[in-house]
Amino acid sequence: MSWELKAADLPDLARGATLLGTGGGGDPHIGRLLVEHVLGDGSITILDPDELPDDLFVIPTAQMGAPTVMVEKIPAGTEPLLSLRILEEHLGRKAEATMPIECGGINSMIPLIIAAQTGLPVVDADGMGRAFPELSMETFAVYGINGSPLALAGERGERVIIDTGGDNRQMESLARAVTIRLGGVGHIAEYAMTGADVRRVSVPRTISMALQLGRAIREAREQHRSPFEAIARVLETTLYTNLRELFVGKVTDVERRTTEGFAKGRAVITPPEGAHDGEFTIDFQNENLVAKSNGDLAAIVPDLICIVDFETAEPITTEGLRYGQRVRVLGISTPEMMRTPEALETFGPVAFGLDDSFVPIEQLRPEPSW
Amino acid sequence: MSWELKAADLPDLARGATLLGTGGGGDPHIGRLLVEHVLGDGSITILDPDELPDDLFVIPTAQMGAPTVMVEKIPAGTEPLLSLRILEEHLGRKAEATMPIECGGINSMIPLIIAAQTGLPVVDADGMGRAFPELSMETFAVYGINGSPLALAGERGERVIIDTGGDNRQMESLARAVTIRLGGVGHIAEYAMTGADVRRVSVPRTISMALQLGRAIREAREQHRSPFEAIARVLETTLYTNLRELFVGKVTDVERRTTEGFAKGRAVITPPEGAHDGEFTIDFQNENLVAKSNGDLAAIVPDLICIVDFETAEPITTEGLRYGQRVRVLGISTPEMMRTPEALETFGPVAFGLDDSFVPIEQLRPEPSW
Repeated sequence: MSWELKAADLPDLARGATLLGTGGGGDPHIGRLLVEHVLGDGSITILDPDELPDDLFVIPTAQMGAPTVMVEKIPAGTEPLLSLRILEEHLGRKAEATMPIECGGINSMIPLIIAAQTGLPVVDADGMGRAFPELSMETFAVYGINGSPLALAGERGERVIIDTGGDNRQMESLARAVTIRLGGVGHIAEYAMTGADVRRVSVPRTISMALQLGRAIREAREQHRSPFEAIARVLETTLYTNLRELFVGKVTDVERRTTEGFAKGRAVITPPEGAHDGEFTIDFQNENLVAKSNGDLAAIVPDLICIVDFETAEPITTEGLRYGQRVRVLGISTPEMMRTPEALETFGPVAFGLDDSFVPIEQLRPEPSW
Repeated sequence: MSWELKAADLPDLARGATLLGTGGGGDPHIGRLLVEHVLGDGSITILDPDELPDDLFVIPTAQMGAPTVMVEKIPAGTEPLLSLRILEEHLGRKAEATMPIECGGINSMIPLIIAAQTGLPVVDADGMGRAFPELSMETFAVYGINGSPLALAGERGERVIIDTGGDNRQMESLARAVTIRLGGVGHIAEYAMTGADVRRVSVPRTISMALQLGRAIREAREQHRSPFEAIARVLETTLYTNLRELFVGKVTDVERRTTEGFAKGRAVITPPEGAHDGEFTIDFQNENLVAKSNGDLAAIVPDLICIVDFETAEPITTEGLRYGQRVRVLGISTPEMMRTPEALETFGPVAFGLDDSFVPIEQLRPEPSW
């Protein structure tokens, strides 16, 4: 069912989107401030994908760049809409709705900024079902929609259009090169498609899921219940059925470098004194990619690996990791459409050059944690 | 007067364009083969700038990239025309003529490939009056024409449009980033303008000048006359009045690296044994920028610094420099429109970060050499 999003919902949505960012995706709280500023007392219509007219013309919108840079560069607020306008002019057709390409991190907010500015509705779905570091890592692409033509807007009004036909990886490569020259952040509109396409190729209801997750965590804290229990109950009602506790411990090392437009590195978590669990490591490229306990696979992309506060379940991004933090590492299963052979080729372990193969988290850890 | 260019003219034109390439600009002989292949027995109409209708719609075309890479990557032949078509579609207007942005090096040939393929005429003028390493280093830009929107075509059919408004340096920066990702070479259409604009902002009759220079060198050799004398007599009839011999000697060192899409380095030439001239150095960034004799300024950009064979006057590009070659270094004065304060700001010494100021070659070396 379609519904109205109000400014009061945004802090919960941002919390849920940070969790789905799996350590990356950029900080949604920065985007949230921009949405609040533009939205005021108004509301944004969120369209359920099942109710979209087949021929509705939808243009997804996003920000691209290394999250470490995004934290430093708050967008001016005009670039997101400019990217949409550039693509509309190029295609000679106006968008009738926008939507996220990525429900995790700041890209949960970018389409909302545009919606608040223009009155356009936003489709409750996305193309990553979490956050991923590259524009080609989209269920849209997996199921046959081209990212091209892509429109890119820079903070000084730069306009770029990139069309690589069916080669979404080349599109990513060229857009990344431009984004780096623009100072590390660009705003993009891409993967234009119809309502019928959206139903076929996107991960449904991920905006509502992020909102419910963020709200459930907050309410559990307010009512002194377990926020982890609350997360588990929300996920049961979605396509992300399985929640697992992968590890509990302290952050003892974070190695991180920004290279070629990405934040790459490794976090090391060690068990509390007296425990004998050995070392837990998480490798990331913007997002957490693979988690290992004493060298044994604990969870792997595209399943979600989320580091959260030990007690409050507040999600912690890669940039937010600090020595000595007490954390829990959560694993969440992704929907089946994100685990098909063609999906794994696009954003599974092999797409990141990892040696391990994909194993569903519910096979690695059969018992529910909550 | 407008005239017809035939395949038989191309070897002379390529030789002249290599001289005007001042060490860079890419090898025109590769482009020449493509023009010959497409042109066959036909001819290309070369329009005199004075005869252009005021409202003629002209789109200049070119290749961009490091000349060291261009030598390795022969263009497929479809990209030059694709770049023109991308810009035409974007602007919603068909070109009525094309022209070079750069008369030196391979970019003397790229508009001819398009002309041979389409029957479009080519304007006898360009925007550099020689070769320069960056797309913003144009008399077009100096005298108020925007390079944007720029269209860029890649060898696998990639289409990119870049619009940075009046910021031609940012246009160069973004196009360079894309070109590097495309493997080092891209084909571009940019600086669209009217016939009236062309007359106001371009260096006139540089295609005919390149052809006359190449022909004069060949004929002098065939008739056992001095090719240097022949070059001097051609230049007297153009806006490039002054020819000077800067140095005679042997190439003893060439230091060269391809970095950020440019070929940068230094050539060292030492005098014949017994002479007491000291060392002669030429610093280049794709093109020769500054020549010094024993540390004293001998010639500096935008004046032309050309290394040629000691005897035959065959121009030698930076990539063609070899240890032990016997060479003459020639200096040629540029037209006045390339030496105004605004022109020097765009492509004079300061634009290349050089410490020396511009001094006209006819002041540095008052006496004609031939």
